Amino acid sequence: MGKEDPGAKATVVTIGNELLSGTVIDTNSATLAQRLLSIGIPVEQMITVGDDEERIEEMLKGLIGSRCLILVTGGLGPTEDDITAEVAAQVLERTLVLDKGSLEHIQEIFERYGLEMTPNNERQAFIPEGAQVVPNPMGTAPGFVVEEKGTILVFLPGVPRELDRMLDETVIPFLREKRKDRNLFRTKILKIFGLSEAKMGQRIEGVAEGIEGVRLASLPSYPENRIQIIAFGEDPDEVDKALADVEQRIHERLGIAIYGVDDESQESVVGDLLRSKGASLSVAESCTGGLISHRLTNIPGSSDYFKRGITAYSSEAKEGLLNVPRETIRKCGEVSLEVAEAMALGIRKISETSIGLGVTGIAGPGGGTLQCPVGTVCIALSDQKETLSKKFHFWGGRENVKTLAASVAIDWIRRHLLGYQMAAFQ
Amino acid sequence: MGKEDPGAKATVVTIGNELLSGTVIDTNSATLAQRLLSIGIPVEQMITVGDDEERIEEMLKGLIGSRCLILVTGGLGPTEDDITAEVAAQVLERTLVLDKGSLEHIQEIFERYGLEMTPNNERQAFIPEGAQVVPNPMGTAPGFVVEEKGTILVFLPGVPRELDRMLDETVIPFLREKRKDRNLFRTKILKIFGLSEAKMGQRIEGVAEGIEGVRLASLPSYPENRIQIIAFGEDPDEVDKALADVEQRIHERLGIAIYGVDDESQESVVGDLLRSKGASLSVAESCTGGLISHRLTNIPGSSDYFKRGITAYSSEAKEGLLNVPRETIRKCGEVSLEVAEAMALGIRKISETSIGLGVTGIAGPGGGTLQCPVGTVCIALSDQKETLSKKFHFWGGRENVKTLAASVAIDWIRRHLLGYQMAAFQ
Repeated sequence: MGKEDPGAKATVVTIGNELLSGTVIDTNSATLAQRLLSIGIPVEQMITVGDDEERIEEMLKGLIGSRCLILVTGGLGPTEDDITAEVAAQVLERTLVLDKGSLEHIQEIFERYGLEMTPNNERQAFIPEGAQVVPNPMGTAPGFVVEEKGTILVFLPGVPRELDRMLDETVIPFLREKRKDRNLFRTKILKIFGLSEAKMGQRIEGVAEGIEGVRLASLPSYPENRIQIIAFGEDPDEVDKALADVEQRIHERLGIAIYGVDDESQESVVGDLLRSKGASLSVAESCTGGLISHRLTNIPGSSDYFKRGITAYSSEAKEGLLNVPRETIRKCGEVSLEVAEAMALGIRKISETSIGLGVTGIAGPGGGTLQCPVGTVCIALSDQKETLSKKFHFWGGRENVKTLAASVAIDWIRRHLLGYQMAAFQ
Repeated sequence: MGKEDPGAKATVVTIGNELLSGTVIDTNSATLAQRLLSIGIPVEQMITVGDDEERIEEMLKGLIGSRCLILVTGGLGPTEDDITAEVAAQVLERTLVLDKGSLEHIQEIFERYGLEMTPNNERQAFIPEGAQVVPNPMGTAPGFVVEEKGTILVFLPGVPRELDRMLDETVIPFLREKRKDRNLFRTKILKIFGLSEAKMGQRIEGVAEGIEGVRLASLPSYPENRIQIIAFGEDPDEVDKALADVEQRIHERLGIAIYGVDDESQESVVGDLLRSKGASLSVAESCTGGLISHRLTNIPGSSDYFKRGITAYSSEAKEGLLNVPRETIRKCGEVSLEVAEAMALGIRKISETSIGLGVTGIAGPGGGTLQCPVGTVCIALSDQKETLSKKFHFWGGRENVKTLAASVAIDWIRRHLLGYQMAAFQ
C-alpha cells in the first residue's frame, strides 16, 4: 500500500472525447466513488480528460506520487483513439508487454462469435511491464494495476457493464485487502420522499449529537432526499452501534417519510410490500403516459403483483377501457378528482386487483386553462374499502410533471399499504 | 478576453460532496460542455471536487492564469457547506460585497412564497468585488463572472434548471460575444439507430476526405450511435457548405439508419412523422411494461397521435383487454410472433388507430426457458394493410432488454412510416 491511507487521496479519472463534448454523461465516476466509499475509501477529486496523449500524460504525472490511489477508466478499446495503456507505459517508463492470458481470452471471444481478429484487437492484450492484469470477463480489454512512487494506479475499461464486473470480481476485493488493518468504515443511505430538503434539515438538526464517530451528509436527489450516515472507528461493534443509533434517531424524527435504504427504490419497496401482503396492483394513467407502469415493471418479479397498466390519453379510452362514465367527464372535466377516482375504480374492477391507481392531469406545455393550468394532476387510489383522491399542482416542464406525479403516486401506494395517508407533498 | 482563444483551454469544474460520494451523477458537466461546444468552445478537462475549502482553493489556484476559461458550478446554495463564493474571493484576493439587486431578488422570492428569510439566504447575495452578476431567474443564488490573470471565471449554481436558464440568458451570449472575431465553428450531430458502431465505422471510413476544415467524432450512446460533424473556418458560407457536404455524404452511406439530428429523439421523429401523415398510434406492451408508452408521451403534443397504451402483463389481460385468442396463447405461448401480432391487431382495432404495436417477451431475470430464454422479445406492427412481426434475442439485464425492445419498436414505426423494413438490429 502507499505511504498513507488511500482513503485520504483517492482520485477517479475518466478518459474520453465523448465525455468532454458532453454527448455522453459520465456515470462511471459515480459508480467508482460509490464502490470505493463502500470499502471506506472516499474519493477526493474526479477528473475527465479527452483521448489526448499530452493531456493524459500531464494529468498522470501530476497525480503519481501525490495521491495514494488513482482509478482510471476509458481509452482501453481497440480503436486508434484508445491510447491509455500506451501513455501509462510512457509515464511509468515501462515497456508494453503481451499478456498471454489476455490474448487467449480475446481470441476465445472472437472464435465464439465467429469473427476475425484485427491487429487492433491484439493490441488490447498489451499492458505495462510489471503490472497485474485485471481480467475482463465481459469484454476484450483487460484492466491492470500498477504501483509507482507510493501510488496505486488501477486502469479499467470505460464500458459500464465491463467495469461493474471487474470492480466486483477483482478491484474491490484487492483494495479491501490492502485496507485491512485501517480504520473501519460503514455507510448507509436513508431515502426520503414527501419532505422538502429544508424541512428535513430542520427536523434532523443535531440528531447525531453525543454519538462519536458519525458524520451525516444530506444528498438531495430530486424529487427525493437522501441522508447518508457515515460511521468510522476501530471496533466493528462500536461502529455498527453508532450507525444503528443514529439511524434509529433519524427514524424517530422523520418516520414514514423514510421509504427505504441504500439500493432500494420507491418501486422496489412498494413491490416488496405488495408481495408480503399478497396484494395486487393495476394502474390507469393519463398524463404520466405509462411512466408509473414502466417504473413498477422495472422490478424483477413484478409480474407477481402488477397486473395491468392502461395509458388512456383520450376521453374515449377512459370511457371504453376504464368505464369512466361519459357524464362524469362531461360534468367534471377530464382532469378532475371524479375522473381520477373513476379511473382507479375502473382499472381495479376490470383487472380484479386489490388496488387500482388512477392519474389524470396536464403535463404541458400545451393544454392548460385558467381553471386547470399546466401541472394540475389528480391522483386516486382505490381498494376494496374505499376510493381516495387528491389534486396537485406540480411545477416544471412536461417530464418534470410526469416524474413528480409518478413519484407521488407510487409513494402513496406505499403509505397506504402501511396504513398512512398520502404525503402533504411540497 | 484571455491571452488565447478560450476554446483551447476551457475547464469545467463541479463542486459538491454528493458528486464525490457517487450518490448524485454529475450531469452539469455534460450540459456545460455541450453548450460551450455549440459556440465553438471545446472543453479540455472536467474536474469535480467536494465542498472543501482547501481543495477548491488548490484547484482554482492551479487553473487561474493557465486556462482561458473556467466554468464552475455548485456550492452557491444557502447552507454552511456552500463555500464556493468565499473561497473564490479568497483566491482572487478580493472581499465579498453585497449585490443589492441580488438581495432584492432573494427578498422578492421569499415574499412571494410567504417565507421568512434567514441570514444564510442573505449570504447568497454576496459576490467578490468587481465581479459581474449573472442573474438567476429560477432561484435565489446569483452567479458571477470575474476575470483574473487572463482567465475568465464563471461561477454558477449547481441546480440544473437554474443553470440551464442562466446559460441561455446570460453566460452563453456573453461568451459568444467574447469570441466574436475568432474562427467560426459549427457542429451537428447525426443520430443513428440499427447499425453497430463497427459497421457504421466501416461504412463512413474516409467520408470527409477532400473536404477542408471538417472533423468527425463518433459518439456511441447506447443503444444508438451518433456522429458529430464539427466544421470550422473563417468564412461562414464556406463553413456551412463544408458541414452540409459532409452531412450529405454520410446520408448517402448510412441512409435510413440516420433517424434524426441534434436534439431530436427517436420518439420526437416518430411523432413528427405520425402527425405529418395524419396517422395515429396505440401500443400494447408486455415485457416493456409501459416504457414505449412513456417515451412516446414524453413528446409535447403527443396526445394528437398517441391514443392508448396497454401494459398487459398477464395472459388474462392479453385476452380481456386486447382480444388475443386464448387458443393462440395456449398453442404458441405468451412470447410468440402469433401473440405479438394478435396484440398489435387487437390494440389497433379497439383504439381505432392507423397503427398498432404489440410487444411481448421475457425481460428477466426470471421466467426464461430453454425454448424461450431471457431476452427473447417478439414485436409486431399492424396497420390497415398488414400485420408484421419479428423475434429478437436481446442481451443484458432486465432494464437493458426493456430499453432495447422499446428502441427497436419505436425505430420500426419510423421505418415503416417511411416505407422501409425493420432494421436488422445487431
